[in-house]
Amino acid sequence: MQKIFCWILVICFAAQTHAQSDLTKQIRNYREKQEHALLQEYISFLAIPNLAADTINMQKNAAYIQNMMAKRGIQNIQLLYPTSPKIPPAVYGELLVPNAKKTIIFYAHYDGQPVDSTKWSKGLHPFKPTLVNGSLEKKAAIINWPKETDTINPEWRIYSRGASDDKAGVMAILTAYQSLIANGHQPDFNMKFFFEGEEEAGSDHLHEILEKYAPILQSDLWVICDGPVHQTGRKMLVFGARGDAHVELTVYGSKRPLHSGHYGNWAPNPALLLAKLLSSMKSDDGKVLVKGFYDDVKPLTEREKKAVAAIPSPDQQMKAELGFMAEEMPGKSLAESILLPTLNINGMQSANVGKLSSNIIPTIAVASLDLRMVPGNDYKKQQEKLIKHVQAQGYFIVQKEPSDLERSEHPKIAKISLSDGYNAQRTSMDLPIAQNLIQAIQSTTNDKIVLMPSMGGSLPLFVFEKYLKATTITVPIANHDNNQHAENENIRLQNLWNGIETFAAIMMMK
Amino acid sequence: MQKIFCWILVICFAAQTHAQSDLTKQIRNYREKQEHALLQEYISFLAIPNLAADTINMQKNAAYIQNMMAKRGIQNIQLLYPTSPKIPPAVYGELLVPNAKKTIIFYAHYDGQPVDSTKWSKGLHPFKPTLVNGSLEKKAAIINWPKETDTINPEWRIYSRGASDDKAGVMAILTAYQSLIANGHQPDFNMKFFFEGEEEAGSDHLHEILEKYAPILQSDLWVICDGPVHQTGRKMLVFGARGDAHVELTVYGSKRPLHSGHYGNWAPNPALLLAKLLSSMKSDDGKVLVKGFYDDVKPLTEREKKAVAAIPSPDQQMKAELGFMAEEMPGKSLAESILLPTLNINGMQSANVGKLSSNIIPTIAVASLDLRMVPGNDYKKQQEKLIKHVQAQGYFIVQKEPSDLERSEHPKIAKISLSDGYNAQRTSMDLPIAQNLIQAIQSTTNDKIVLMPSMGGSLPLFVFEKYLKATTITVPIANHDNNQHAENENIRLQNLWNGIETFAAIMMMK
Repeated sequence: MQKIFCWILVICFAAQTHAQSDLTKQIRNYREKQEHALLQEYISFLAIPNLAADTINMQKNAAYIQNMMAKRGIQNIQLLYPTSPKIPPAVYGELLVPNAKKTIIFYAHYDGQPVDSTKWSKGLHPFKPTLVNGSLEKKAAIINWPKETDTINPEWRIYSRGASDDKAGVMAILTAYQSLIANGHQPDFNMKFFFEGEEEAGSDHLHEILEKYAPILQSDLWVICDGPVHQTGRKMLVFGARGDAHVELTVYGSKRPLHSGHYGNWAPNPALLLAKLLSSMKSDDGKVLVKGFYDDVKPLTEREKKAVAAIPSPDQQMKAELGFMAEEMPGKSLAESILLPTLNINGMQSANVGKLSSNIIPTIAVASLDLRMVPGNDYKKQQEKLIKHVQAQGYFIVQKEPSDLERSEHPKIAKISLSDGYNAQRTSMDLPIAQNLIQAIQSTTNDKIVLMPSMGGSLPLFVFEKYLKATTITVPIANHDNNQHAENENIRLQNLWNGIETFAAIMMMK
Repeated sequence: MQKIFCWILVICFAAQTHAQSDLTKQIRNYREKQEHALLQEYISFLAIPNLAADTINMQKNAAYIQNMMAKRGIQNIQLLYPTSPKIPPAVYGELLVPNAKKTIIFYAHYDGQPVDSTKWSKGLHPFKPTLVNGSLEKKAAIINWPKETDTINPEWRIYSRGASDDKAGVMAILTAYQSLIANGHQPDFNMKFFFEGEEEAGSDHLHEILEKYAPILQSDLWVICDGPVHQTGRKMLVFGARGDAHVELTVYGSKRPLHSGHYGNWAPNPALLLAKLLSSMKSDDGKVLVKGFYDDVKPLTEREKKAVAAIPSPDQQMKAELGFMAEEMPGKSLAESILLPTLNINGMQSANVGKLSSNIIPTIAVASLDLRMVPGNDYKKQQEKLIKHVQAQGYFIVQKEPSDLERSEHPKIAKISLSDGYNAQRTSMDLPIAQNLIQAIQSTTNDKIVLMPSMGGSLPLFVFEKYLKATTITVPIANHDNNQHAENENIRLQNLWNGIETFAAIMMMK
């Protein structure tokens, strides 16, 4: 009974205090009239391939964004390059007002994760944006792009690399400003726009850009648009992010693939060796067994613990939606789990499976791992702990292909390639500008917004702190089931529309 | 001292008794004059793709072999189809002599293993036969095909799918007969030729062909040409083969790929689950831990044990060549190891690695396993033992993709797909026809030939026994380092030339 009572109280409270503002209604009315044009602009943007290493297409993307900015009257548009002109530039623009009391910079990134187009569902292609009348996982179907006279259903989704991560951020931010102007509103602080082109490649040169252009990149707040909203669909603010680094492991068998009949039982099988090595890294209840893995973790503050406790639990809903019964750490909630460092297998491969498999003993087996860091962790230390673990399993470690001599001297050999990485970051929820931001976003929705001390994902937020002493808060807009980073990435149109309202409210915040 | 003394004795003995016959020298002289024409004929044959499922190309292969037979004067050439005309036929021909005292059937197969052309080395393609001046693993280089005036070096290799496994068998057998006729020799027994088109796909329809054409397929011996000679390079006779069957395992995580930051530590990772499952199947010293795995193995006879003991040990040479230090079962020789049943991982895959990897938690992880059987094993029983093992690790077993209900009810789910397979077979070394065959092959070489109770590899020999009550002995010709079943398959020309001499001697045997 008590539980039901509390629940009713919360609902009433929410209904009373979280009414949508008039501004939000204006922005919505405007958007509803512009949907066809916005869709057109967005799908042309998505059709430009956006792998950071693809210099020519990244230049096209940057030019497209410059054009989007110019159309909206944004000023001082320019490309901010790091030292090398081959690295995708950040696209920059600004809107200055006289006697502005503060400056807010809006960040999103326009590059996307690598693509393996063969893995996308039939009819889809990463760079041919495709309209689907819902979620493909829920048996929705591909449909034609709407004619001018058709009504656009907000449950439709656009499938394309970058649709949610993170061209949606660029689109929502710029369209929020367009909507404000069209309704006669004008922000009373300086706004700057900064769209990165190398985030999914690790933001290796972001610090160069921030250093080089520090004079124009001073601000009171960076609002970072990236990632998905809460799994319940509620809007969300995130005050930090996990750090990220990668480790690639290769273990070796014979130098050439061997017939599994003629040599099976005798030649070592690297797939089995890798399976045993990976198994040694985690217990059956999901605990990382690498020595000292959790040692440096900074505990949550009391306020952060309270915020975590207030996050609505999406666990049962998510398990049903994702189709699994048991979480990796039995009994630990999603919200708790993402506040710990991780060791995750992104991919694992040895020879072929299925129709391409043949009767061989493979020559190598490879696993790509990612490590997520939380405040307190240093990514290089985490990588080092993993190397020591591999050594402790009897492996001789090499940085390049083993030589014949090394092969003849060591029974087990692992090549370990370490990526660059970055550490976690967290902003205090107590800052006045944080409170203002919370209020502005709350004004756009009847639902109580979710406040998270840290997202599970990673953003190079530490770079802003280190090179600009900047404060960052993240405002995600994508649907949680967007297949970000994988095949069949998509954005639900309602999330894009909501994002426009969110950023318009931020631009008019106190 | 004693050891050296024995060694000298053996050498003298070998030199005395294993002199090459005049016949072998005649065959060699003839071949040396024909090399350019033979090479031309062979590379056109290899250029025809030969995956058993590729019906149109398999018909082209069959027609090519019919033409090779007709050119050599072989009679009653025909295609032996099983019930379905879509299955590649066996290509058949015969040479009958009046009052023949026996009939020998020569077998090879013209289909090849599946190909993943992206894995072949630069400049190679599975169906564009390419000449290399040695072994690519030993840094040899691709060279142009020789002009008519060029000398052909027998250390050159042809790289192509099927070059060694097993179009080389077709080529060597037919050219042996051509060489005999050219030198005025005529076998005094009936010879039949039977070239299968479905061996690498599991010989699923071979039994239909043998049953349907049983009247013309009666014989005293089937001589099976397949597989590689001994690793020392010595010629070899093999009296049996391991059986073979496959198992494909798929384990499940989330239904859609998840961002490894937003869900890492919480969503189950199927790559890790598979790693743990595979690890549970074998001990660190290579022993299969599946319950009862070795229970049915029929022990070797005393004579077979002696034959095994007499096999020259290639182990140290092979380890150096293959680039590994430790065999899978510490202390067990290659010759001993292949007389045991196996559980081998042919391939393992979950999402992507390397440049294609992305920050996700994969949805599934797949392993393709092959099981080799020895006399005493029943392949269905071995598969059943493996299924029970997976269940014992806590898995719910499905035969097709798990339903949402199954996903919600079982913490660990594995899909298991079983292939058809076949059991091992072994012919007695004591048969008079076996002794005659040994003598014939010994007459072609100064080296002592190797006699193996069983090869490590598999051939559907049990089918011949079951449907025709036939006796089979295998006579391989390919180089041991031929990359059979994998990328970069190749034949060393000297092995092809030696094969011609071997089969010519068999055709003139007592």
